[in-house]
Amino acid sequence: MTPALPDPALDQIFRSARTHNRFTSDPVPDSLLRQLYDLWKWGPTSMNCQPARIVFVRSAPAKEKLKATLSAGNVDKTMAAPVTAIIASDSRFFEHLPTQFPALPTARDLFAGNAQLASDTAFRNSSLQAAYLIMAARSLGLACGPMSGFNPVALNEAFFPDGRFKANMLVNLGWGSEQDLYPRGPRLAFEEVNQIL
Amino acid sequence: MTPALPDPALDQIFRSARTHNRFTSDPVPDSLLRQLYDLWKWGPTSMNCQPARIVFVRSAPAKEKLKATLSAGNVDKTMAAPVTAIIASDSRFFEHLPTQFPALPTARDLFAGNAQLASDTAFRNSSLQAAYLIMAARSLGLACGPMSGFNPVALNEAFFPDGRFKANMLVNLGWGSEQDLYPRGPRLAFEEVNQIL
Repeated sequence: MTPALPDPALDQIFRSARTHNRFTSDPVPDSLLRQLYDLWKWGPTSMNCQPARIVFVRSAPAKEKLKATLSAGNVDKTMAAPVTAIIASDSRFFEHLPTQFPALPTARDLFAGNAQLASDTAFRNSSLQAAYLIMAARSLGLACGPMSGFNPVALNEAFFPDGRFKANMLVNLGWGSEQDLYPRGPRLAFEEVNQIL
Repeated sequence: MTPALPDPALDQIFRSARTHNRFTSDPVPDSLLRQLYDLWKWGPTSMNCQPARIVFVRSAPAKEKLKATLSAGNVDKTMAAPVTAIIASDSRFFEHLPTQFPALPTARDLFAGNAQLASDTAFRNSSLQAAYLIMAARSLGLACGPMSGFNPVALNEAFFPDGRFKANMLVNLGWGSEQDLYPRGPRLAFEEVNQIL
């Protein structure tokens, strides 16, 4: 049996990890964003469909374009973050299945012919991949500030004008600061969430 | 700056981890399912909404009930797995917001009055939580076999007849065996998935 990770690792990615609203001024270089992908890309997706597409918003002009699409409460912290990841999904993810899931030659057509299945699969799996990205970032020592508060129509128009990619959520990334850390929210009890049959 | 986890930890949860189709006969006791929740519950959700609800299917009668709802290719491996987690979402997750997100007293009504927002939030966040569960299981040394291949209408009727919970995905859990491990699928290149602006 594979042993559990040591406690400090479990603390870093789960037990002591927090949603950060502020970051230090240390930059997040391209090399780290590549290291990040080289971890989270291994998280499993249905039929290896990998629908998530990421735009790392880091330059001042790109941040300015993002600003107009954010909910009021998310503007200041996002403008100040070293980088903001837009996690989108590719509505035509299935075009990659012939190379990504050759075991089932009919996989592409299964999704191409069923818009509801394709859209549910893109939403579910790009959300799974957003969580893999968060866990991978924490594994690398980065702090995350995930957000759903933005105008998806405006964001899609600004960043994905051809309509193929659809924004799912945002994650601010950087080196964590303790500033503006809210008290940690409670969690539901085991019995409220889990049943064993 | 927080350092990255050591390589063996990154290997265990990302780089060497695989989707398992077979498990050893070692059991997965209640205490381990509680340990699992005490990790993955800390993963962040929007407004701390925590919509995921888990049914651990472990007994023979519960497995039999699940069997009829599975896609043909998922039957044998699921019947043989020590435990199968049904990851569902609570369509009325927002009833818990007064205790789980007291910072925004209007949070419950925001979702109670907007069925589309509630349903998107439940789907997105229960999917994030499914990924947290997978990463937490791997952190504890468990192997996972996530699946989307089942009949959701039949599964919801069998396990959630009052209509409040909706199945999202399934994850077989146990101690990994190398039997029936498929060759690992490729992953998209950095440039196919990521843009830096």
